[in-house]
Amino acid sequence: MAKVNEDFLKLAGGYLFPEIARRTRAWQEKNPGEKVLRLGIGNTTEALTPYITSEMHRKIDLLSDRSTYTGYGDEQGDTPLRVALSEMYRREYGVELAPEEFFVSDGAKADAANIQQIFSSDSIVAVQDPAYPVYVDSNVAGGRSLGFDEESLSYKGLVYMPSNESNGFVCTPPETHVDLIYLCFPNNPTGAVATKEQLKAFVDYAIRENAVIIYDAAYSDYIREEGYVHTIYEVEGAEKVAIEINSFSKNAGFTGVRLGWTIVPFGIASDNAPEGTVHRLWNRRQCTYFNGASNIAQSGGIAALSPKGREECRSLVDYYLENARIIKSGLEAIGIKCYGGVNSPYVWAKAPRGMKSWEFFDFLLEKAHVVVTPGSGFGGSGEGFVRVSSYGHREDVIKAVESIVEHIND
Amino acid sequence: MAKVNEDFLKLAGGYLFPEIARRTRAWQEKNPGEKVLRLGIGNTTEALTPYITSEMHRKIDLLSDRSTYTGYGDEQGDTPLRVALSEMYRREYGVELAPEEFFVSDGAKADAANIQQIFSSDSIVAVQDPAYPVYVDSNVAGGRSLGFDEESLSYKGLVYMPSNESNGFVCTPPETHVDLIYLCFPNNPTGAVATKEQLKAFVDYAIRENAVIIYDAAYSDYIREEGYVHTIYEVEGAEKVAIEINSFSKNAGFTGVRLGWTIVPFGIASDNAPEGTVHRLWNRRQCTYFNGASNIAQSGGIAALSPKGREECRSLVDYYLENARIIKSGLEAIGIKCYGGVNSPYVWAKAPRGMKSWEFFDFLLEKAHVVVTPGSGFGGSGEGFVRVSSYGHREDVIKAVESIVEHIND
Repeated sequence: MAKVNEDFLKLAGGYLFPEIARRTRAWQEKNPGEKVLRLGIGNTTEALTPYITSEMHRKIDLLSDRSTYTGYGDEQGDTPLRVALSEMYRREYGVELAPEEFFVSDGAKADAANIQQIFSSDSIVAVQDPAYPVYVDSNVAGGRSLGFDEESLSYKGLVYMPSNESNGFVCTPPETHVDLIYLCFPNNPTGAVATKEQLKAFVDYAIRENAVIIYDAAYSDYIREEGYVHTIYEVEGAEKVAIEINSFSKNAGFTGVRLGWTIVPFGIASDNAPEGTVHRLWNRRQCTYFNGASNIAQSGGIAALSPKGREECRSLVDYYLENARIIKSGLEAIGIKCYGGVNSPYVWAKAPRGMKSWEFFDFLLEKAHVVVTPGSGFGGSGEGFVRVSSYGHREDVIKAVESIVEHIND
Repeated sequence: MAKVNEDFLKLAGGYLFPEIARRTRAWQEKNPGEKVLRLGIGNTTEALTPYITSEMHRKIDLLSDRSTYTGYGDEQGDTPLRVALSEMYRREYGVELAPEEFFVSDGAKADAANIQQIFSSDSIVAVQDPAYPVYVDSNVAGGRSLGFDEESLSYKGLVYMPSNESNGFVCTPPETHVDLIYLCFPNNPTGAVATKEQLKAFVDYAIRENAVIIYDAAYSDYIREEGYVHTIYEVEGAEKVAIEINSFSKNAGFTGVRLGWTIVPFGIASDNAPEGTVHRLWNRRQCTYFNGASNIAQSGGIAALSPKGREECRSLVDYYLENARIIKSGLEAIGIKCYGGVNSPYVWAKAPRGMKSWEFFDFLLEKAHVVVTPGSGFGGSGEGFVRVSSYGHREDVIKAVESIVEHIND
C-alpha cells in the first residue's frame, strides 16, 4: 500500500507565517475599514531598479526572436552569471572561488531546504536558536528528528545553539559532536552579525569534527560597518568545510523574480567521501531535481552584479537600512530594548512588561494595528521577542512606528 | 563525522545528456568546421510568442513601479494562474478540479523529481521502460533501490514495465504490488499515446492496490487525433489515485523561462493517511522547500492560458509536429521503422541492420553529422532504438533528414 513519508507528519503545526496571516485576517474581519501596518514578513516592497529591468526586458526581446532564442540552460546556471559571481567575490571580498563552485538557483530558500538531501539521513544537525524555520523543517522532513517535543518546543534529535542577550545573539559552537551546522549572518531573525573571530571558532570546530557548515549569507549586502564578515570564505579554512547560500532577493528585490546561488567548494570532503564528492553530489542533485533558474531572472542577475547594478542594489539596501534605523530609534525612544537593525534589515525587539512573543504580537495588532513576527516562532530562545522588519514603504514604516509609540501604554 | 547520502552514490554513471554532449564535443574537436545537426535533446528552438511576451514585459513594468511592485507570491502559485489552469481543464477537457488542487512550479522536471519525497522511502516504484531518467534517478537517490545491476542495466528494487513493439509501447500494469507508478503520455521517449481504456487499467490497478499514479502529461498539447487522453482525470476514478504533472515548456517554449504545474487532488488517500493528506503534504513540501515560481514567468503562464495565448501555443506546437512529420516520413522512406511522431514531438526510430542504440548514435554522428538520443539511455527496453527530436529550426530538421537519407548506407 502506498504510504506517505512519516517524517513529514512529524512537522509541528503550521508554518509561522500562515498563522500570522490567519490572526491578521481574523482581526481585519472584526475591524473592517481599519488599516493594518505590516512589518511582519521579510518581503521587499520597493521597485525593481532601472538597469536590472532594462536587461530583463532585453532578454525577453532576445527570446522573442528565433535567431537569439534559447531554451534549457545549464542546471548549474548560465556561465556568464557564474563568472560574474566569482568575480564579485574576488573584487569585493578578496575571496578566490572558481565559477564552477557557484550553483545558480531559484532562490536561497530552496537551496537552504534541499542542501541536507546530499548528506546522510543520520547526520546530527545543529541550528541557531532562534533560526529561520526552513533549516529545521527540512531536516525534520529529511528524517533527522524523532519528533516535536511540546514541552521544550523543540525537535528531539536536533542540537540547538542558544543565541540570546548573554552572547549578543551570536552562539558558540556545540560542545558535542554534530555533522551539519546551519549559520545565518546577518541573522534572520535577530539581526546579529558575526565577526571573523566568532566564525573562526565554527570553522575550527568543523575542521576538528569533520562537520560541514551551511552558511546563509542572504543579508550580507546589509553589512555596512567594518569588522564583520560578508562571506564565510573570508575565514581561513572555510573553503574546506563550508557551503554558502545567498540570494538576489533582499538586495535586488528579487523575492518574486526568484534567483539565488550556492557555493559548494571543491575542497569539502566528508567521512565517507573524498574531496570533490560533496561538490559532485550537489551537482548531481541539481541536475536531477532542478532544471535551472529562469533565464529572464538570470539576465537580471548578471545586470545586478555589474558596477551599475551593484550601485542600484546598494541604494535599495540603503532604503531598507534607513527604515531599520527609524524603527530602532523609534522603539528605543519608548524604552523598548532593541537588537539588530544595523547591518541588518531586522530589528529584534524585546517585548516590554514581560510579555511573551505572541502576547506582544496580539497587543501590537490590536492596539497599534501593526503586524510583526513573534520571536518564539523562530525557536524557544526567541520567546519574549518580536522581529520587526524594515521591508515596507517609508511612509508606512513611519506610520507604524508612530502608532506603536502612541499606543505602547494602552 | 559528516557523511554524504549513500543513496546518491548509487546513481549510475553520468546523466544521459552530458554523455551525448561529451561525444558530440569530441567529434567536433576532431572535425572542426563541420556543422553538427542536433535532433537530440528535447529543447525548444522557436521564439516566444507575441502576446505572451507582451504580458511578461508588462509584468516587469509593474515590478518597476513601487505602487504595483510585489515580492514573494504564494508558494503554491498566484491565484489567477491557478484559476486559469482550473478553467482550462474544465473548458478543454471537461474535467472539474479546484484551483487549490493546482500547484504552480518552476517546471515539470522538478516536480517529477520531488514528488517521491512525500511518500515513504520503502515504497515500491514502477516505471515504464524506457522512461525519462528523472523518475528513476529521483527514486534511487530517495533510497528506493539497492543499487544498479550492470548485467540487466536496471536498478535493483524498481519494477520496470516493458514498453516495446509488442505492446505498441504502452505497457500494462505490473503483475505484482507496487506503491507508486510513473506514467508519461504522450511518452518521452517513445512518442506513444494512451487511450482511455489503457489508462483505465492503471487507474483500476491503483484503486485495487491502493497505489498512487504519477502522470506526466508534459506533451499533452501535442495530441491532435481523437481517442487519446489529454489528462488522466478524463479517466473515471483517477481523481482518487493520480497526481498529474504538466508544463509550459513544450507548448509555450518556456524551457528556459521555467514554469509548470502539478495537480494533487484532495481525494487521494493512502495507507497511512486519510483523504486530503497527500494534498496537504505536497502543500507542506512546497511551502518548506520552494518559494514560488518566478512572477514574470507566471504572468507569461496566465497569458498562455488565455484564448489568444492558447492560439499562439497551438501554432508553436503545430510547427514542431510538422517537423516530426518530416522526420518520420523521411526515415520511413529509407526503410527505418518509426514509432511516435504523431501526437508527439518525438520519433522513436529503430536502428537498422541490428545496430545497438549507441552504435546508431555514433553512426549518425559520424556519417550524417546528426545528433540523436540513444534509446538505451532511457532504459534497457530502449536498446536498439534512438529518439529523434522534432525540436529544431525547420531548415535544420530538413537538412538533418536529408543528410541521414544520403548517408544511411555509408
